[in-house]
Amino acid sequence: MNRFEEKTIGRKSIYEGKIISLRVEDVELPDGKTAQRELVDHPGAVAIIAITDDEKILLVEQYRKALKRSLIEIPAGKIEKGENPDVTALRELEEETGYRAKQFSYLQSFATSPGFANEIIHLYIAKDLFKIEHPAKGDEDEFIHLMECTMAEADEMMADGRIFDAKTAFAILYAKKLLKN
Amino acid sequence: MNRFEEKTIGRKSIYEGKIISLRVEDVELPDGKTAQRELVDHPGAVAIIAITDDEKILLVEQYRKALKRSLIEIPAGKIEKGENPDVTALRELEEETGYRAKQFSYLQSFATSPGFANEIIHLYIAKDLFKIEHPAKGDEDEFIHLMECTMAEADEMMADGRIFDAKTAFAILYAKKLLKN
Repeated sequence: MNRFEEKTIGRKSIYEGKIISLRVEDVELPDGKTAQRELVDHPGAVAIIAITDDEKILLVEQYRKALKRSLIEIPAGKIEKGENPDVTALRELEEETGYRAKQFSYLQSFATSPGFANEIIHLYIAKDLFKIEHPAKGDEDEFIHLMECTMAEADEMMADGRIFDAKTAFAILYAKKLLKN
Repeated sequence: MNRFEEKTIGRKSIYEGKIISLRVEDVELPDGKTAQRELVDHPGAVAIIAITDDEKILLVEQYRKALKRSLIEIPAGKIEKGENPDVTALRELEEETGYRAKQFSYLQSFATSPGFANEIIHLYIAKDLFKIEHPAKGDEDEFIHLMECTMAEADEMMADGRIFDAKTAFAILYAKKLLKN
């Protein structure tokens, strides 16, 4: 899967942060010419399509500083160093929603911004949910508002822009397909 | 739409690149505590769900240095400075596929990586496609392989990981829904 591979011929680290890092690479193109690529490293993340017994989807609202607004998204979170994504997914579901799931399965993974970042999101499906009395707490700097929405409500929030996030848009189309079957 | 707003109390520019820039902001959280946010600025992009008269979807394979592999994606591209996204979308469709469309409409926009970047993708639907004899050429440093795939082929590529990109996963679900109706 390396059609048109670009060979690195130079590399300069710009920033090593708490979550992301940035480097600039000089690459050799398939035609022998060179180009520069600005590349962000990200540890990867998980996201969970969680469906309640009454066919609602769990969504969380949180402020996203990069976009200067709050977004309504499916539960999600970064993979901690050395953590298995399955563990991250179960942890984030509990931390962000207070739910655990009797049915929990991996769905698929995809890159979110392949043009400049290596962030990969691993998607999971959670069903047969049950509330935890004292759920594990999330990050100290995360403020989250939990919502349980019907598919009609989710559609409405897609239409009016409250849902404005690629993984959540995918999740809602997927959940609708799932609930029809 | 500013629930849990985080007020910027400090800002440091790290990098101003050709495509992206990076800054670190100190923010005040809703509880008065502070946190640091690593934020990437991106000019935004368009992507096109292009459906041929025989119900195939146009896909392009290109190498993605950030992921060190080639990906199969719907046609897409960055918005040039000052460019209207509608214009970008028509331009990218022609440059990457050699097609123009008699039916072309805006579908929706979403953030791709709201945790750290402000990249927004504007999605379009193109139908009634026709080949251009001498299409506009794309960026010099872009090498692209065009594919026209049935929905079954697209599903197969989702399953085996050749399609590994959030906007394309959304596009395929959406196209399947569209073609059923």
